[in-house]
Amino acid sequence: MEFDLVILGAGSGGYEAALYAVRRGMKTALVELNPASVGGNCLNKGCIPSKYMRYGAFLVDRFKVMPRYGITPQGYVLNYQRLREGRDDVVITIRENFKKFAQHIKLPIIYGRGVLRDRNTIYVEGANETLKAKYVLLATGSHPAAVGDLQPDGKHVLDTDQIWEIEDFPKRVLIVGGGAVGVEFAYIFKSYGSDVILVELKDRVLPSDDIPEDSARFLGRKLKKLGVDIRTKTSVESWESVPEGVKVSLTDGTEVIADFILLAVGRRPNTDNLGLKEVGVEVNDKGFVKVNDFAQTSVENIYACGDITSPLMLAHKAMYEGKIAVNHMLGGQDLKRNERIIPKIIYSAVEVASVGLTEDQAEDLDYEVSVGTTSFTTNPKAMDDGENEGFVRIVADEDTGEVLGCHIIGPYAGELIHQVVHLIRDGKDVEFLSKNMYSHPSLSEAIGQSASEIYYGPITWVKR
Amino acid sequence: MEFDLVILGAGSGGYEAALYAVRRGMKTALVELNPASVGGNCLNKGCIPSKYMRYGAFLVDRFKVMPRYGITPQGYVLNYQRLREGRDDVVITIRENFKKFAQHIKLPIIYGRGVLRDRNTIYVEGANETLKAKYVLLATGSHPAAVGDLQPDGKHVLDTDQIWEIEDFPKRVLIVGGGAVGVEFAYIFKSYGSDVILVELKDRVLPSDDIPEDSARFLGRKLKKLGVDIRTKTSVESWESVPEGVKVSLTDGTEVIADFILLAVGRRPNTDNLGLKEVGVEVNDKGFVKVNDFAQTSVENIYACGDITSPLMLAHKAMYEGKIAVNHMLGGQDLKRNERIIPKIIYSAVEVASVGLTEDQAEDLDYEVSVGTTSFTTNPKAMDDGENEGFVRIVADEDTGEVLGCHIIGPYAGELIHQVVHLIRDGKDVEFLSKNMYSHPSLSEAIGQSASEIYYGPITWVKR
Repeated sequence: MEFDLVILGAGSGGYEAALYAVRRGMKTALVELNPASVGGNCLNKGCIPSKYMRYGAFLVDRFKVMPRYGITPQGYVLNYQRLREGRDDVVITIRENFKKFAQHIKLPIIYGRGVLRDRNTIYVEGANETLKAKYVLLATGSHPAAVGDLQPDGKHVLDTDQIWEIEDFPKRVLIVGGGAVGVEFAYIFKSYGSDVILVELKDRVLPSDDIPEDSARFLGRKLKKLGVDIRTKTSVESWESVPEGVKVSLTDGTEVIADFILLAVGRRPNTDNLGLKEVGVEVNDKGFVKVNDFAQTSVENIYACGDITSPLMLAHKAMYEGKIAVNHMLGGQDLKRNERIIPKIIYSAVEVASVGLTEDQAEDLDYEVSVGTTSFTTNPKAMDDGENEGFVRIVADEDTGEVLGCHIIGPYAGELIHQVVHLIRDGKDVEFLSKNMYSHPSLSEAIGQSASEIYYGPITWVKR
Repeated sequence: MEFDLVILGAGSGGYEAALYAVRRGMKTALVELNPASVGGNCLNKGCIPSKYMRYGAFLVDRFKVMPRYGITPQGYVLNYQRLREGRDDVVITIRENFKKFAQHIKLPIIYGRGVLRDRNTIYVEGANETLKAKYVLLATGSHPAAVGDLQPDGKHVLDTDQIWEIEDFPKRVLIVGGGAVGVEFAYIFKSYGSDVILVELKDRVLPSDDIPEDSARFLGRKLKKLGVDIRTKTSVESWESVPEGVKVSLTDGTEVIADFILLAVGRRPNTDNLGLKEVGVEVNDKGFVKVNDFAQTSVENIYACGDITSPLMLAHKAMYEGKIAVNHMLGGQDLKRNERIIPKIIYSAVEVASVGLTEDQAEDLDYEVSVGTTSFTTNPKAMDDGENEGFVRIVADEDTGEVLGCHIIGPYAGELIHQVVHLIRDGKDVEFLSKNMYSHPSLSEAIGQSASEIYYGPITWVKR
């Protein structure tokens, strides 16, 4: 069969690129391992099921604020099976909708493992089909990493592919890794009543350079307040199987017993055994495919998107790169890869959202930096909603006022950040943001106020 | 005492303008009736206390979705006094913060009724002080309207100044008026267990032209599903006091008994007895002060903002106009009144947000209109959060692609709309919106998808 475009992988990046390509008139096919993996990691074993459980945790948390609203709950019972059913129902619904929609727009999904035979030929193992393609998009995603002795066995050590299969809330869980996934599960399990120990090698949770120190510390404190036992600068020395589950020796000299270890130490790109080397697609020493601004690999007609192009493994990065690639195949140069406009959002005890540069990153790039911060503590809408914690922090170039980054921690940070994402993409400055219209009362007001702190100077300047 | 600026009214508009003026270096004073009315209607008897109660109603509503998240609540008890205490606590905290902050930045608040003596002189009754001012900003707000026989008496007929004083949830309440306030209280009382009858003269709830038919009908259906007895094309014919409260004859031929009638039929500007006529400030036949694009009245050094300038009585309109006025006093012409960029947000059983033109309004202005709609039903984040109802609707100029309006109904519509508010202010088109970065999963994705429906054509075009 001959196509304009064959896409290896029907995850977030591949699927979005396929819809976009169909929309733009390309004869397109998707290659995906099997019907159960359509939607990829995000849908099946990542952001979608975790966000579902996280919303449940958020609901459990609401019991605490209810009394202030004249609501006295008479207790509640938690049931893991119901949670899991609800979660899987959402995942399966989205997955089946995907497939139906593909059928509807006549987008074939060929099941099997796709391998490049030459730059225009894909052989699909399993389906035993050979596809010819003018363009190829590699969207094969990633798999969970393991470290040293911590090899996932699905029983004592679970990785983020396996965690979905547990049958009940753990009594006690040890989470290894304080990144986005670690803090998300820490909040989920803690809210649902588990004891949670979180170990992180670095000196804070969310150790990524893209997340400012302030946001990370804020979340860390909040998790601690909820009772999560956070151990930074700590890792696992050894572990053994015991009747209760696992007994783990930590590098802080303590021993803990837990039902199991959840391994959340990052992911590795799926770039092996795809025939990349054979057709000349260059891969770096970490296994990432080398791409230019248009998501094009070293082979002109072969593009790549998502987890295989860089360590920033986010579904929307994959989706955006997929569109960039298709757009470029059709001659468009207006869309370009730009990690600075990609928001990073973590859903834990609060939402943590970042886009663009942190203050530290901006200073490292030799900007003179201005920062404006507004707390949600006194934000009327946040107060009305009983969630007045966190802040908005805007980082700007002192000379030009250009908005370099925005970092929000607090209610709906993950949605709020978008208004700044769009304006950063457009190169807007703090003057523009401060002169925008923000409804009252709204959480969004805190964005305008932060910009005004920079543009007009702090409101308390009259005293200085 | 002499000031650069004296502001009559320390409500949303007056207070915001004062902060802005201080920030810009003007010697400013606020005149406000009394210490308990600082913050004006929005803070004391409007958006802030109602949003608090609305969030409580939303929390009560969450009990319905909890089972899907593995949470089985064992019942709950409702207590009006606790709700009221929590609500009043937020209001008082914000009000006192306001006052403390004014003191901190040396912004005097003079208590009493301010009246213009001449264009530069304000006499404050009560305080018995005379203030001289280079500029004056009128920010006196509005008061609830009454109609015919329905005169608020605080017992049988309550207006929106009086509703805050009730001592318990009503068993049964008749709400007159299906606008923003009516549908908000209908949801609050219904969620907290009251029987609610809502009568509206027009043929739908939210009858404002600024809210599209689709949004209004959607909300109406949702309220009905919750059990609100909505009677459109209906009004009150007569009422009488009975032991249970009131017996009301409606124009649909029925009689209903309720604890009381809540009157939510709009507001009238506070422009009487301020000395406006005497100093030459022109007022129209509805009592609104005539202002130009810069919120300037017919008297050069006197400006007006908020509820007294037009029937669009929103706190953020007042706040924005206050800033426009101050900016213009200081020579700035870059900020202008523009009701098209003012979002209208209603917090009821769902959030309803609109900015810019509706499809009908755009057609009336002879635009060739394109519309792109995306449902939240299949939005993954909305599904995860158990709130996948509603839609995003973008109205664009077919010729240029310019975004003319955006209408969102669904979760966090009131925050989501801001990203479009800013882009409409900047004259952006659907191409810009469709090429933006939206995180996945997020509710915001529905905005990009709606824009893409217009820019690329509906995704199903291949079948046409």
